[in-house]
Amino acid sequence: MTEHSLWRFSRALHRAINERQREDLEALIDEDVDWAIYGPIDMFPFFGARRGKAAVLEVIRQIADNIRVHRFDRESILLGVESAASMMRYSLTMLDANKPISLRLAHFAQFKAGRLTNIRVLIDTFDLVEQALGRPIHLPRIASAG
Amino acid sequence: MTEHSLWRFSRALHRAINERQREDLEALIDEDVDWAIYGPIDMFPFFGARRGKAAVLEVIRQIADNIRVHRFDRESILLGVESAASMMRYSLTMLDANKPISLRLAHFAQFKAGRLTNIRVLIDTFDLVEQALGRPIHLPRIASAG
Repeated sequence: MTEHSLWRFSRALHRAINERQREDLEALIDEDVDWAIYGPIDMFPFFGARRGKAAVLEVIRQIADNIRVHRFDRESILLGVESAASMMRYSLTMLDANKPISLRLAHFAQFKAGRLTNIRVLIDTFDLVEQALGRPIHLPRIASAG
Repeated sequence: MTEHSLWRFSRALHRAINERQREDLEALIDEDVDWAIYGPIDMFPFFGARRGKAAVLEVIRQIADNIRVHRFDRESILLGVESAASMMRYSLTMLDANKPISLRLAHFAQFKAGRLTNIRVLIDTFDLVEQALGRPIHLPRIASAG
């Protein structure tokens, strides 16, 4: 059994972010890749949708300019033949503010011939925004406890 | 091939939320279930962690008291033998405020003998909070566009 595409992609992605070495990653992204990280793009310009390898490599460069990954734990994972989903917890630093951030995300990824063709990333964005602001946002209680 | 546990659980869950019919659901939840919906519990008291069937049925009752589901689309899905992960888009109403909400979530679920033993739900919570507040939260641009 050969290694699942997810593991190669994950290693190359983290290497691209932390070491700015993109050679491995470039070979693992499909020319027509469809990419989305859901979240507030006003605060984080590298969130949002990107289409095509050049746009995705560019957004990964922006991510590398802004964060450093210290640690990640894969809390849940499901692997298909050419697909993968995981829930992950990241410890990272926002480089500009030198601020530690801990976030939880879920991703769904599809591969073709070992190359990433589609990825959707969902983040617990409210928690992320509060950490990035460095203060809690006051929230009214909306729902009744019943 | 028998039907995957996810489909039965999903039907019963939505029936419990929209029609307050919990009979089907009760048979599909393990006594020792481990349940978590990540998000701001100050605003949504039915978010957070619950342990055991009674606590989970109670929190589903609270959810039913607060929301009505109009529609959901499963955008991505991976099925294992006794596990499942999906990314979903929901259209729902917050009953207290009669407010329409559209949200994206990801869940990772595990089953044993057809019963839910573990579920983790991640939500694009910042988007949800803004909709529940009914106004945008001003955010500074934190990251550099590079």
